[in-house]
Formats: sequence, structure tokens, C-alpha cells
Amino acid sequence: MSTAKARDRSWWGWGFVDEALGDEELEAVADVLARRFPTGPAPVLASVPEVTGLDLPPVTIVPPASLRDLCSEAPGDRAAHTYGKSFRDVVRSLAGDVAAAPDLVVRPRAEQDVADVLEWCAGAGIAVVPYGGGSSVVGGVEGGAARGQFAGVVSLDLQLLAGVVEVDRTSRAARVRAGTFGPDLEDALRPHRLTLRHFPQSFEHSTLGGWVATRAGGHFATNYTHIDDFVESLRTVTPAGVLESRRLPGSGAGPAPDRLVLGSEGILGVVTEAWVRLQDRPVHRATAAVRFPSFAAGAEAARSVVQAGLFPANCRLLDPEEAAGSGGEGSALLLLGFESAMFPVDGLCRSALERCLDHGGAAPQGIRSSSTEGAPGAWRSSFFRAPYLRDGVARLGWIAETFETAVTWERFPMLHAAVSDAVHAAVGPGGGSLTCRFTHVYPDGPAPYFTVLAPSERGRQLGHWQEIKDAASEAILSSGGTITHHHAVGRDHRPWYDRQRPDLFAEALAATKARLDPSGVLNPGVLIGPVGA
Amino acid sequence: MSTAKARDRSWWGWGFVDEALGDEELEAVADVLARRFPTGPAPVLASVPEVTGLDLPPVTIVPPASLRDLCSEAPGDRAAHTYGKSFRDVVRSLAGDVAAAPDLVVRPRAEQDVADVLEWCAGAGIAVVPYGGGSSVVGGVEGGAARGQFAGVVSLDLQLLAGVVEVDRTSRAARVRAGTFGPDLEDALRPHRLTLRHFPQSFEHSTLGGWVATRAGGHFATNYTHIDDFVESLRTVTPAGVLESRRLPGSGAGPAPDRLVLGSEGILGVVTEAWVRLQDRPVHRATAAVRFPSFAAGAEAARSVVQAGLFPANCRLLDPEEAAGSGGEGSALLLLGFESAMFPVDGLCRSALERCLDHGGAAPQGIRSSSTEGAPGAWRSSFFRAPYLRDGVARLGWIAETFETAVTWERFPMLHAAVSDAVHAAVGPGGGSLTCRFTHVYPDGPAPYFTVLAPSERGRQLGHWQEIKDAASEAILSSGGTITHHHAVGRDHRPWYDRQRPDLFAEALAATKARLDPSGVLNPGVLIGPVGA
Repeated sequence: MSTAKARDRSWWGWGFVDEALGDEELEAVADVLARRFPTGPAPVLASVPEVTGLDLPPVTIVPPASLRDLCSEAPGDRAAHTYGKSFRDVVRSLAGDVAAAPDLVVRPRAEQDVADVLEWCAGAGIAVVPYGGGSSVVGGVEGGAARGQFAGVVSLDLQLLAGVVEVDRTSRAARVRAGTFGPDLEDALRPHRLTLRHFPQSFEHSTLGGWVATRAGGHFATNYTHIDDFVESLRTVTPAGVLESRRLPGSGAGPAPDRLVLGSEGILGVVTEAWVRLQDRPVHRATAAVRFPSFAAGAEAARSVVQAGLFPANCRLLDPEEAAGSGGEGSALLLLGFESAMFPVDGLCRSALERCLDHGGAAPQGIRSSSTEGAPGAWRSSFFRAPYLRDGVARLGWIAETFETAVTWERFPMLHAAVSDAVHAAVGPGGGSLTCRFTHVYPDGPAPYFTVLAPSERGRQLGHWQEIKDAASEAILSSGGTITHHHAVGRDHRPWYDRQRPDLFAEALAATKARLDPSGVLNPGVLIGPVGA
Repeated sequence: MSTAKARDRSWWGWGFVDEALGDEELEAVADVLARRFPTGPAPVLASVPEVTGLDLPPVTIVPPASLRDLCSEAPGDRAAHTYGKSFRDVVRSLAGDVAAAPDLVVRPRAEQDVADVLEWCAGAGIAVVPYGGGSSVVGGVEGGAARGQFAGVVSLDLQLLAGVVEVDRTSRAARVRAGTFGPDLEDALRPHRLTLRHFPQSFEHSTLGGWVATRAGGHFATNYTHIDDFVESLRTVTPAGVLESRRLPGSGAGPAPDRLVLGSEGILGVVTEAWVRLQDRPVHRATAAVRFPSFAAGAEAARSVVQAGLFPANCRLLDPEEAAGSGGEGSALLLLGFESAMFPVDGLCRSALERCLDHGGAAPQGIRSSSTEGAPGAWRSSFFRAPYLRDGVARLGWIAETFETAVTWERFPMLHAAVSDAVHAAVGPGGGSLTCRFTHVYPDGPAPYFTVLAPSERGRQLGHWQEIKDAASEAILSSGGTITHHHAVGRDHRPWYDRQRPDLFAEALAATKARLDPSGVLNPGVLIGPVGA
């Protein structure tokens, strides 16, 4: 249908095969890394194993004849559905470790197929792992850990349940099938001059259903941050039947049914369709780049802007290290952007800029405004490229990882210091860098996003990564942050999520799951229950 | 503490005793009504029964000694806690019907008292009806219907669990006890120059805990409409223990725990505290009043304004009948208001006004702007007065009632026509008026608010009211609306709520309740389970 689908996706790493860094590029990256951290182990390029040579576990289940056409045992399918796309997933794939592969990849072509697959698996005690684009970085689509407790594992890939079914131009909403990838969704909305305007970093490689299940965050900094805000109604197939909510712009009738499904990460049912709220495509834009003497000063300015109710589309604060290379060495950089489909936004941008100047900012270039449609290209392209670079670092035996959270403003300085201390200690004597940006800002707190780059070496790489991940997660949790602002919980965040969420809420969720998924076959190990065998 | 508490609240009707319309005023109202609808039964003023003469049922339960100090059997307390403040409640109270009175009114002084009361009642099979300000208009605090199934009924009045405990100026949040009334909350925040800015019509007579439990709507038209948006974290005492969420500006860690409690209407636990998000007090204001040749034309303009992302604080569209008296007979009136603590809002108001003019609106007075703090007085005072007038109509034997919903824009014209037809048919040959306004507007639909005034007569009054209520509710539901946008479900909306919410969501809620309230003593009949004996 779209060009996105025609391109091959990587079985072991992020995104499209043809976007991965080649060996030559990686040798150049290795040189840069080695020069930057000369005391650490030297980066050494590993080759990518061939799918045909992988040691996949034997298939232990046989689908009923009526479902056979939907099922694939192809090694490429099974290998690609073994993991999501976290750093750990990439390293394990590069090591040829696919012992956790699902028995079958099942691709329903209609909603009834989903119900039929769930019925079969519930009856036969087979674990079902719902799979959208497979871009989880938290172990959300990795069913292998549950293998011992189940007769087998099925990866339920929704990609054929795709497309925009209906557009309501008056209310600006669309009924969209869950397996629709970001670019296909936007392509289908463009002729209506509408947009969902939800751009997670995984945009090209994730689906609407995946966004709903994981409460995905888009790249806009304020106001509409999560997919939650765009959901008008949901249709979810559970082993106990279909749960469909009413299309409503707002309601106060009991606890919101959709909020039970949003973030349920496939443990209660499989989202098959959603009505989503759309927007007109922005044509007015105004941006400003403001330098601050320190990250802390920039944070105060960002707080001031968002607490003023100015709602910038972009309010990305980069610490001095992240801002390096864009001029103004040693200073933090706040990128402000306002967008509107309807009215000029220069005035709002000016109000925001004034607040920044009051907080010690400097913006020598002032406000840049434009009234044309078209994506701000450069940063978005580097934003979308970042995971490919991470994969390259993984191939070199080093560590590149990100951690994200949200925390109230008064706790942010403490959290920032705690994460820095913990990560630097875990990185160890080889040295490494930890940088921070704000991806989203709320009136009551920012969403800090940390990036770590550290020398390591094959053999030690995964253990080293785990030490860093544990240290960062521990610091985030004990400083009052959330273990995830938009990456989701999956299996990897369970130790911290289990402490973060109220125990009685876990009991409520377990009671709900027992009713909707009585056999407990849906995505075992995610959110509640034992993580693995 | 505040003047609000020192004034007596009415046991039978809305709000403060000293605000109720007196007999002389009501005779004048009767004249106006009789002239307006001369073919209906004449309004006849009923007297208000004395509390001392009420036939209260015998008290059948005895609290343990440790709780005796918190309990009241006083007839005035029991009478005042028999019902909420719906039209039906007022009529039943005026008829001296208090057979549904609770045995005891219990007023905890500390959170532990709440836990102790729940433990006692769960053990003894006594129904517990959490009670904030008691302003429910949907039968949310009426426990009497469950009497037959329980050993007794306790009204758990949270009013002594009040006050602002802690203010975080940096993150603009406050920790507030559930029993805090609106004016007391704002009084406590004023020295910090902060405000919750949540003003439901019941503001003076409802509490933070009640707002949370019922997903109350404030009077601002866009963006922050429900209390949901202001909740940073909650603390809820359930029979199974305390459920407390983490203070977070945003999160993507599983389904949002607070969203389970928001709208749970006291069936899962008793909210005892919340951290709420605050705002700086607005000082910049700009308003415009725009006339349209028809309600439909005004609706299109309102849609255009909110879909442009202009977020007016006020975007109240009055149909020609509601707008009558403010000049410009026969035309609909859109009241636009913008507010900000931080920046002038004339530009935003101008953008909104331009859209209205493009849609055939006329605004001879243009934009009025001000930069002073101070409430826009006149409309707010009439907004707060409306329920007292309704009580007066009830005393005259007639019917005054409101219905509210939300619906997507493309369905609104059909819903408006269906509600009009259904209500006029139910009102019957005596005639009556049905008017409509928008209280809130969303990008994907408005929240229409209907007011009905109809001649009736004592004896027939309640049955007549029920026919009108049934007709309106049926029309709302079958036209794709929600049975409530901000009045909540309670017991009165159950027949329609039961059809609106997904069956599997009801099962999830029932499973959750079985875990958190295993004895099922909390607010029986609300949201799930049998409504009454």
C-alpha cells in the first residue's frame, strides 16, 4: 500500500534494512568513539548473523486447519518476532540468541480472525503476544520468557488489519484499524487535509494499536502529549468478547472505559480499531532557539513558559552537551516552536521568548516564522536516525541507551543529580557520557530524557548495560519519577513498575484480567503476574 | 473557618437556607409562570415540612463505642442525608418522604476513622454511602434504596476531613483533604496567588472528594473541563486498604491508576486526599458577545473556534430562547471569553471573533478586554442562583429540570432534534419550554445542556417529571450522546448508563469492586449491581 511497507524491516535491529549503518560507516563511528573515550575498551565491529544460520527452537504447536493460512513458521518471521527493538534485544539478536522465538507468527486478516486465534490459544494454553510494529524497547513483545508455563507462544502480528475505514470531517475523527503504521495513517488522512499529529520516534515502525496499548508519546511537548488524548473510542477483542466504547468528545459517566485499555499493553485484549481525534494540518509556524548559561536556568525558563499556559508544540531543552555542535559551546539550548492550522502564532512565540529572556536566555536570531506546510526537516531526520546509530554502537560492542521519565518540577534537580551520579558510577572507569533533554513539559513537571554512551566490550556488554539500566531506574524511582513516561512497562521495567504502582491497583488489574482473559494467555509477564519461568 | 461553613445548609433543597426564595418571591414567580403557560395547571405553593415533624425510620444499628463520637442520629442530620439535591429529591423531601434516611450520619475526623468505619460496616453488613457536599443531582448519595439488603445504612460525611495540607509553589500543586468545599479551597490558595480554577455550579456546596468521585465538570468551556485534568495523585481508603498513586505530571506506566478512581462514585473506596494541579490567578481577560441568526449557525461558529485550537475559557452558546432578555430577540448568542495569568489575550479573542464573523455572527460591541483580577460577576451569580429557582418551581408543583450530555459534532443536530421532540411530547398538552446551551465544547463535539420548564401539579409532579426524564435520556442515548457529561451516573442514570458502557467494562468494574470492597458495602446500586431492593 505505502512505500513504508514495501521496504524490508530488519529482523535484528531498528527499522528498515536499508537505513542501517553500513560496515564502512561503522568503522568511521568506531574511530570517533575511540578518540572520544580513549581509556575504554576499543570498539570492535561484530557481524550480523544470517537468519538462515539461526538456531531456532522447534515448533511445538499445530494450529487448527481454519487458522493455518494466517500462520507462519518461516525462520525470518520467527526471528524478527522474538524480541522488540531495545538495546538488549539488538545485542541478543546480534549474538544469534533466538531461543525465545515464538512458535508461530499469526497475521489475522479480519477482526474475527483475532477472536478465533484467542479462542484457540485460550483453549490450548498457548501464550499470545500482540504485536504491532514490534518497536517496543521495554520487552513488551517478547513472549519467550513465558514458554515454560505455556504449551507454546504465538506472536499475533496485526499488520494486515490496517487502514483508515471512515473519516468524519465534521467532528474531525477517523476510524482506523489497529495495524495501521504511522506513515500509512498520515497518507490516508492527507487528502482530507487532516492529521493525527502523533509522531513518536518509532512513527515509521509502530502502529496505532501499539500506540494505544502502550500509551505512546508523540513528539509535541505540551498539551497533546500521549495517544490517550487522541482516543475518542476503542474496540478491543478479549478472550471474553468484544469491548467497544462509545464515540464521545467527553464524558463523566463512570470511570473512563478507554483508560482501562490505554496502557494495558496487550494483557487484557487486542485493540482492533480506534476512533481517533484529528487536527487540521498546521500552516503557521514560529520558532525560536534560546541559549541559557546552564541546564538549570533553561529548565526554569521552560517551566515559566509552560506554566504561563502558552502550549508550545515544541519546548525541547537540551543540556550543554546535547546542544554542543549547534554553536554556543557550554550553554543549554531551548528550542521553542508554535504551530497552528488557523492563526498566526508569532504573538504566542514572542510571549514565550520574552519569558525566556527574563530568565537569562539569549536568542540572537529572534523569532523565525513561516506560513507554509512542510515538516521542519533536519531535526526530525536526526530524531528518526538516532536508533540506527544506537544499533551501530551495539554492533561495536559499546553501549548506547536512553532512559525517560517525568517528575514534578520541585523534584527535578534532585532526580537529575541522582541519575547522573548513579549512571556515571555504573558506567565505570572506562568513562562515558550522560546527557539530558526535556522531551515534554507539563505545568507541574518535565519529562527528562537521558542518553548514555559508554565504552564496553562484547561478552561484558549485556551485563554492563544491565548495571547501567538498573542504576538509572533505581535513581529515577527513588527520586519520585515514573519508570516510564512514554516507553511503556513491558517486561523490562517490571521491577520498578511493581514498586511504583499502588498494590491495590495491581490487584484491580489482576481481577480485571481474570475476567477478560480467564486463561491468562495474553502477553504473560507484562504489567502483572510472574515475569518469566 | 470560612463564612460558607457558618451558614446553614438546607435539609430539603439546594444550598444555603438564607438563599432560598421566600414565599413572597415565589408568589411572584407563580404569577409569571401562570402568565407564561396559561393552559397548564396553576402553580400552587407548598409549604416546607418541619424537620421535627418528619417520620424518620427507626435506627437499627449501633456503632462500636470507639466510633460513637463520630456518629449522629439527629433528625436534622438524617433528613439532610437522605437524598442529594436533584429535582426528584427536592419533591420527595417537600412531601416529607424520608423513609430512605440513613441510620447514622458519621463524620470521620481523620483518615484512620474512615478505615475504621469501613471495617465496622464491612463486618456488620452495613451499607456505606460516601457523602461530600451532598449536592448530587443523580441519586449518588441516596443509600436508602439498598436498605433491605443491608443491616443498615451509614452516610459517611467527609466534611471534617478538610483543608489544604501542603502547597508546592514550584510545581503549582497542593495536597488537599477530600472534604474541602470549593470556597474554602480557593480561600486557602489565594495567599499563594494560586487557584484550582474548577468551578462547577455546585462550587459552594460540593467538595474536592465529591468532584473526584463524580468526575465533576467546571465552568470553563475548553481544555481543562473536568476535575480529571487537575488530579496529580489520589489517596483512597478502601475496605481492602489504602490505594495511593504517585505524584506525577504525566506517565505512561500501565493504565492510569487515578482513572480507575475518577468517576468511581464511591463504590470502590473513599477518596481522602488528592494532590491537585493549580494555576496562577488570571489577570488578563478578553470577551466578546456574538449574535447568530440561529442556534445551528452559532454551533458551527463554536465548532470553528474550538477546532482552531483557540481554547477559550468561555465558549457558551445560548439558543434564542436562553438568549432572550439580553437583547437581539430571536438570535442565538455565543459568549466568548479568554483568560490568562501571564499574557494579554486580546489577540486570541480577535482570532476567535474573526471566525465567528466568517460564520455569519455579529458583534456590535466588539472585544472587551481587561487586565484586572476579579470575577465576571453577573452571569456567575445567576449561574449559582439557578438551582434555588428550580427549588421554588418544585414548591409550586411545576417542573424545572436540566439534562446534559456530550456528542460528536456530526450527530449534534440529530440529537438536538430528538431531545426536543421527545421532551415536548413528554411535557404534554400543558405546554412548557425546552432550551439549550453549550456548556463545554471539544474539537470533536459539544456538551449541550438542556433546561426544561413545564406546568404540572402536585400528585402528578413526580410521575410527570419521570416521563420527561425518561424521554430525554432515551433520546440522548439513542442519538449517540453520553447519559452524563458532568452530573455523574448515581442511581438515577443507571438504566441508560447500563446500556452505554461496554458490558465487559462493567464486568471489569465488578471484578475490581469484588477485590477492593469484598463485602460490597460501598454505595450499593451506583454504577454496577442491582439499584435497589
